[in-house]
Amino acid sequence: MKVKVGIIGATGMVGQNFVGLLSNHPWFEIAYLAASPTSAGKRYHEAVAGRWHMLQDMPGTVRDMVVADANIVQNAIGKCSVLFSAVEMDKNAITSLESEYASRGLAVVSTNSAHRYTEDVPVLIPEINAEHIAIIKDQRRKRGWDKGLIAVKPNCSIQSYMLPLWALIRAGYKVDKVIVTTLQALSGAGYPGPSAIDMTDNVIPYIGGEEEKSEIEPTKIFGRIQDGKFVYDDTIQISAHCNRVPVSDGHIACVSVKFASRRPATKEIIDIWRSFKAAPQELELPSAPQQPLIYRDEIDRPQPRKDRDAENGMAVTVGRLRECKVLDYRFVGLHHNTLRGAAGGAVLIAELLKAKGLI
Amino acid sequence: MKVKVGIIGATGMVGQNFVGLLSNHPWFEIAYLAASPTSAGKRYHEAVAGRWHMLQDMPGTVRDMVVADANIVQNAIGKCSVLFSAVEMDKNAITSLESEYASRGLAVVSTNSAHRYTEDVPVLIPEINAEHIAIIKDQRRKRGWDKGLIAVKPNCSIQSYMLPLWALIRAGYKVDKVIVTTLQALSGAGYPGPSAIDMTDNVIPYIGGEEEKSEIEPTKIFGRIQDGKFVYDDTIQISAHCNRVPVSDGHIACVSVKFASRRPATKEIIDIWRSFKAAPQELELPSAPQQPLIYRDEIDRPQPRKDRDAENGMAVTVGRLRECKVLDYRFVGLHHNTLRGAAGGAVLIAELLKAKGLI
Amino acid sequence: MKVKVGIIGATGMVGQNFVGLLSNHPWFEIAYLAASPTSAGKRYHEAVAGRWHMLQDMPGTVRDMVVADANIVQNAIGKCSVLFSAVEMDKNAITSLESEYASRGLAVVSTNSAHRYTEDVPVLIPEINAEHIAIIKDQRRKRGWDKGLIAVKPNCSIQSYMLPLWALIRAGYKVDKVIVTTLQALSGAGYPGPSAIDMTDNVIPYIGGEEEKSEIEPTKIFGRIQDGKFVYDDTIQISAHCNRVPVSDGHIACVSVKFASRRPATKEIIDIWRSFKAAPQELELPSAPQQPLIYRDEIDRPQPRKDRDAENGMAVTVGRLRECKVLDYRFVGLHHNTLRGAAGGAVLIAELLKAKGLI
Amino acid sequence: MKVKVGIIGATGMVGQNFVGLLSNHPWFEIAYLAASPTSAGKRYHEAVAGRWHMLQDMPGTVRDMVVADANIVQNAIGKCSVLFSAVEMDKNAITSLESEYASRGLAVVSTNSAHRYTEDVPVLIPEINAEHIAIIKDQRRKRGWDKGLIAVKPNCSIQSYMLPLWALIRAGYKVDKVIVTTLQALSGAGYPGPSAIDMTDNVIPYIGGEEEKSEIEPTKIFGRIQDGKFVYDDTIQISAHCNRVPVSDGHIACVSVKFASRRPATKEIIDIWRSFKAAPQELELPSAPQQPLIYRDEIDRPQPRKDRDAENGMAVTVGRLRECKVLDYRFVGLHHNTLRGAAGGAVLIAELLKAKGLI
Repeated sequence: MKVKVGIIGATGMVGQNFVGLLSNHPWFEIAYLAASPTSAGKRYHEAVAGRWHMLQDMPGTVRDMVVADANIVQNAIGKCSVLFSAVEMDKNAITSLESEYASRGLAVVSTNSAHRYTEDVPVLIPEINAEHIAIIKDQRRKRGWDKGLIAVKPNCSIQSYMLPLWALIRAGYKVDKVIVTTLQALSGAGYPGPSAIDMTDNVIPYIGGEEEKSEIEPTKIFGRIQDGKFVYDDTIQISAHCNRVPVSDGHIACVSVKFASRRPATKEIIDIWRSFKAAPQELELPSAPQQPLIYRDEIDRPQPRKDRDAENGMAVTVGRLRECKVLDYRFVGLHHNTLRGAAGGAVLIAELLKAKGLI
Repeated sequence: MKVKVGIIGATGMVGQNFVGLLSNHPWFEIAYLAASPTSAGKRYHEAVAGRWHMLQDMPGTVRDMVVADANIVQNAIGKCSVLFSAVEMDKNAITSLESEYASRGLAVVSTNSAHRYTEDVPVLIPEINAEHIAIIKDQRRKRGWDKGLIAVKPNCSIQSYMLPLWALIRAGYKVDKVIVTTLQALSGAGYPGPSAIDMTDNVIPYIGGEEEKSEIEPTKIFGRIQDGKFVYDDTIQISAHCNRVPVSDGHIACVSVKFASRRPATKEIIDIWRSFKAAPQELELPSAPQQPLIYRDEIDRPQPRKDRDAENGMAVTVGRLRECKVLDYRFVGLHHNTLRGAAGGAVLIAELLKAKGLI
Repeated sequence: MKVKVGIIGATGMVGQNFVGLLSNHPWFEIAYLAASPTSAGKRYHEAVAGRWHMLQDMPGTVRDMVVADANIVQNAIGKCSVLFSAVEMDKNAITSLESEYASRGLAVVSTNSAHRYTEDVPVLIPEINAEHIAIIKDQRRKRGWDKGLIAVKPNCSIQSYMLPLWALIRAGYKVDKVIVTTLQALSGAGYPGPSAIDMTDNVIPYIGGEEEKSEIEPTKIFGRIQDGKFVYDDTIQISAHCNRVPVSDGHIACVSVKFASRRPATKEIIDIWRSFKAAPQELELPSAPQQPLIYRDEIDRPQPRKDRDAENGMAVTVGRLRECKVLDYRFVGLHHNTLRGAAGGAVLIAELLKAKGLI
Repeated sequence: MKVKVGIIGATGMVGQNFVGLLSNHPWFEIAYLAASPTSAGKRYHEAVAGRWHMLQDMPGTVRDMVVADANIVQNAIGKCSVLFSAVEMDKNAITSLESEYASRGLAVVSTNSAHRYTEDVPVLIPEINAEHIAIIKDQRRKRGWDKGLIAVKPNCSIQSYMLPLWALIRAGYKVDKVIVTTLQALSGAGYPGPSAIDMTDNVIPYIGGEEEKSEIEPTKIFGRIQDGKFVYDDTIQISAHCNRVPVSDGHIACVSVKFASRRPATKEIIDIWRSFKAAPQELELPSAPQQPLIYRDEIDRPQPRKDRDAENGMAVTVGRLRECKVLDYRFVGLHHNTLRGAAGGAVLIAELLKAKGLI
C-alpha cells in the first residue's frame, strides 16, 4: 500500500516537478492536487494547458485529476497524509497555510523558504542533517500536533557546496571559511523567470535574496538542536556571490575553503568524497543517489550539460580540487537545481520521514 | 604626419581587431600587414576571405594591402616603426621573433604572453604602471638596441579587477588578499574558440592556463624595477577561478578583497573609483577612456551586453560593492576583453610610448 | 526650429527605442512623454527604473522629463505636433485613443497594429508606398480633421522580404507567389517576451498572429487608393511560416518567389537591388539608409549579428540569391526588427510626412 | 548469440553515438572498434580522452577495447560481421574503403554520404523504402560479393519531412511539390562544428552542400529499382533552404506541400500520420519507434527541447498542420538528427537487414 500524497501549488513549475517525480514512485501515490482558485475545479491537464514545462509529457495518471483550491485546507483532509508544498504566495500566507495543513494532521514537506527560519522547523539535506528530524517531536508537542509536521528543504543554491563540505566536516576537518561564487541556471528562478532578451549573450551577476540565503541557511543545517530550537553554527563564515547564467538546469559553485585547524591532503579529500554515504544511502531511500558525491578527474568538469543528470539528478558532482592561494583549497561543485535542489530534495526528505516512522 | 605601424598576425582575430582600431587612428597609420606564409602574397581581403570576424566590414584602406610573411623580419624594415604583434606560434618562436623585430629598430607592442615573464619587458596597463616604461632604457642598453623595444599587455582576464584594486591601492589602501571568480567571454579564446555544441546550455568551469596568468601577472604589474629587472610584488595574494560562459564579448570578475591594514568605507571606495584618472587620461591618449572606472548603482550591473562597450570598450565597469563575510569587500567588475583586454589595451600602450617619446 | 514631438507608451520597449532615436534627431525634438497612469507624474528615469532595456544609457535630455498620462489627450495639446504611438492596450482602446489624438490636431505615427486595417489609414514603408500618404487628404476630409492624421508602420516581420520584392516589382517584374519562412528575433515580442528557459537550446516554430499579418499587410502596402479607401492587391499570394529563434535583434526571411510572367536573370536582380533608391533617399530623409538594399556576395550572409546594424539598422541586407526548384528564385533577407521594423520605420514615416508638408 | 559488430570511425562524434546505441543492444554486440592511425593501438578511453561528447559516460564495456586502424581492412576480418561506418575521410577514400570491407564479407552500414549516389547502394529510411534492400542481391551478384553488402542512411536533414510526406503518399496522395526550410541543430555539423562565437545571438542561413542533399536524396528514396539500379523519382520537386540555429540536437523543417491531384482533408492527414506504421514496426525491430509519427495538437510544437527525445529520439514529431496560401498545406516536422537522423537511423537499417536475413 503506497502512502497517499498531495501537492499544493501543483500547477507551477516546482509542482510539475513533483508530479513528474511522484507519478511512478515506489512508496508514494499522488492522490490530491491543489493550486490557486483560478485552477480549482479544472482537470489537471486543463489547468496547466499551455504551461506544462517538463520535457516529458504529463503522466496519464494525473491528467484528469480535478485540481482543488489549495487555500481550503479541508479539501485535503482524508485524501492524503503527506503534502508537498510548492505554493507561490507571500511569505506570511505560506507560513500560516502550511502550518494549518500540519495542524490538521498532514506531514507537510515544503520547497518554500517561508518556514526556513522557523525555530522548530528542520531545513533538511538528508545526507547532512537527517538527525534534525528529532525536532519534530518538539514541534508536535509545542504546537499540539498529533501526526502533522513541517519539514523544508533549503534554497537550491547551496547543495553543490554543502555536500562536499559536509563530507569533509564529518571526516573531522572542521571548515572555517568559505567563499563561493555560483553560476546558477534559469530554472532556479521559476517560470517564466528571466527574459530571453536579457539572457542572450549575457550573464547577470545578481539574484535577489540568493546570497543571503546561501550564507545563512547552511549555518542552520550545520547547527544543532537545543531546548527544542535550532542553534545555528556561527563558527563557519560563508560569503556567496550569485550569478545567473544562460543554462536551463544545473547550478555550479566555485568554492574556496579554509579549514579551522588541520587540513586534509588532496588525495584524502577525494577519497572522502568518493566514499561518502549517509542516512539516505544506508536507509536505501528510493530517491537516494547510490553515490551522493561524484568526483570527476577530467580537468574541465563538472559541466551543467554533462553532469546535472548524474544519478537521476540527485548526485552532486565535484571536480577541479586544487590549492587556493588565499584560503586552503578550491573546487567546483554542481547539482541539478530542480531535482536535488528542489522537488527531488523534498521527495528525499519525505522518504526519510517515512523510513524513520514519522509519516 | 602619422606614425607608420605594422601588424604581424594580421589575419587572426586579434590582428583583425588591430586593423579595426588602427584604420582610423589619429596618430597611427597602418602601413604593413604580415601573417603566416600561407597568407603571404595575398591581398588582405583574400587572405581573410571567409574568416573576417569583426562585426564591422573590413576597412577599405586595408582591403588591397598585400600581406607579407611575418617570419621574414626584413620585410618590415623601412615600412613601419611600430609593430603590433598578434602572431599565433609557439612561445619560443614568438619570443625570438619579437626580439628580432625589436633588434632591427621596431617598437614591438604585443598581445602575446611570450614575453610577459621576460625580466626587462614591461607588462603594461597604462592606468596602473605607466612608469614601468622606464625599464625600456635598460632593455635597450642591455640588448644593444637603439630604437627598438618590446612592451606587452597582460592576459585579458585581469583588467576588470586590476583597475578597481589599483585605484584603491593608489589611494593608500594596500590590498592583501584577493579571491576572484571570472565569467569569461568566448572571444577570449580566439577563433574558432569553443565549439557551439559545448557552449549551448552550458558553462565550462575551466580555461587552460588562465588561472595561473590571472594570479601571477598582477604581481608583476604591481611590482617595481630594481637593477633593470622587475621585482614582483609578493605581498598580494590572488586566487583565481576562471570559467567560460556563452557570451560573445565581456569578461566578468566576481571579486572578494581584503586590505592589509585599514580599509576604506563603502562610499569612499565608490568616490575613489569614480574620480580615478591616471597617465592615459592626463596625457589625453586617443584611446584612453575619459572615465576608466565606471561605478553603476543598479543592483544587477555590470552586465556584458549592457556595459562592455562603455567608453568604446576601454572602460572597466564596476558594481555591487558590498561587504564580504570572509574578506573585507566584494564587487563585480567587467571589461571588454578584446578591446580593453587585448588589441585596445595594446594600442593604448603604443600611445603611451609615443606620448613619452619612446616611439 | 525643430518640430516638437511626443511619445505615448514612452516607457515600454518600443517607446524606449523612440527615445533613443529621437533624442538627437536633426528635425524632431522630444517635448512630451506619456505612458500609463502608473508612470504618470514620475520623472522618466524613475518611471523606467529597472526596466531600461536599451544598450545605450538613457539620454540625459529625457531623464528628468515628467511623464504624462497617455489616456488624457488634453495633456499633449500644445506640447507637440507629432505623436509617436507605442502604447500597449487592447486594440479598440488604441484605435480610439490614436483617433482622438489625431482629431485634436496631432500627426499620429504608430507602431501598433490597431489601425493597420482601417480603410483610410496608410500602412507605410516609405521606400515602397510613399505615395499612399495621398490618402491623408481623404482621411482629414472624411473625419473633419484639420492638421491631425494617422499613419502606421506594418508588422516587423515583413520588411526583409517586402523591400527586395518591391525593388523587382518596380523594375517591371510582377511577383505572383511568395513562400517565406521567418526566423524572428526575441525583441520582436516586446519585453519581457519569451522566457529564457523556453529559448535555451530551442526554437519555437510559432508566433501568435504573426503569419496572418505577414501575409495580409503586404497586400495593403502593394495596394492602391480608390475612392478614399485602400484596395488590397489580391494578385499576389503570400504564405508565411514564422519561427522564434534565440537571437536578440534581427529578423531573417528565407524567401521563395515566383514571378507572374517573365523573370529577371540573377545578375539583373542583384543589380536592381544594389541600385535601388526610392523616395526616402531622393528626399534625403535623415533616417533613410543611403543604400536601402545591400546585397552581400558571401555565401553565408546575411546573419543577424553581422548585418542587423547596417546603415544604422535601417537597411535590408539580402543574400544567397539562387534558383528555386519549385518557384523561380530563392533568397535570404534580414532587417533589424526594432529599428527598420519598428521605431526606426516609424521615424522614417514621420520624416516623409514632414518632407511632404503634411506635418 | 548476439551478432558481432564493428565501428569504424569509432572515435568521432557519430562513432561515439554508435557506441552509445550499441553497447546495450539486444541483437548486436560491439566486438571491434577502429579509427584513424593516430588512435590505433590505444584503448578506446585513451583514444577519445578529452573528446567524449556524449552526455552519458562511456560504457564500461568499450573503455578498454584496443582501437584498430580502420584503414587496414584485414583487422576486422573474423572480428565482426556487421560494420558501422562513420569514418571521416574524403569521399573517394570512403567509397573504396567501404567497398573493400564489403568485398571481404562484411555488411557495411554507413552514415557517410560517399555511397549515396552509387547506383546499386540503397539509401534507406526503413519506414519508407525497406523494400529497397532487394537491390542487395544485384549488388552482390554484380560485385561478386558473397555475404558483404553496403547500405547507407540519407542526410540528417530530411527525416522530419520525408516520413510525414511518405505516410501521405502511401495513403494514395501523390506529392508534387515541396518547399522546405530547415532550422538545423549544431550536432548535425559534427564536432567541433560551428564556433560558439558565430552561433551566439545569431543564426546562419547556410549549410554547405545541405540543400542539394535535401533535394536529391529524397528522390532516390522515393525511387524504384530497375535493372539492378535505382531510378530516381523525378515527379516530385523539392526546394530546400537550410539554416543553422543555436540548438544542440533536433532539426526542424517548415514544410509547404502541393499534392499532384486530389488532396486529403486536414483531419485525414492527421489520422494518417497518427496511425502510420511500416516495416520496422511490423518486424518489431528493437530500435523502431512504436509510433514513428507523433502529431501534437499544441499550437507551438514540435520544439527541439521538448520533442527531440520522443521514442528514444527515433520518432518524427509533426505539428501545426494548416493550409498554405501558395501550395496546399503547411506543417512543421522535427526529428533528432544524431539519433533518427544518423547513428540511430543506421542501427535501424542493420536491424532491418538482420530481420530480413541479409545479415
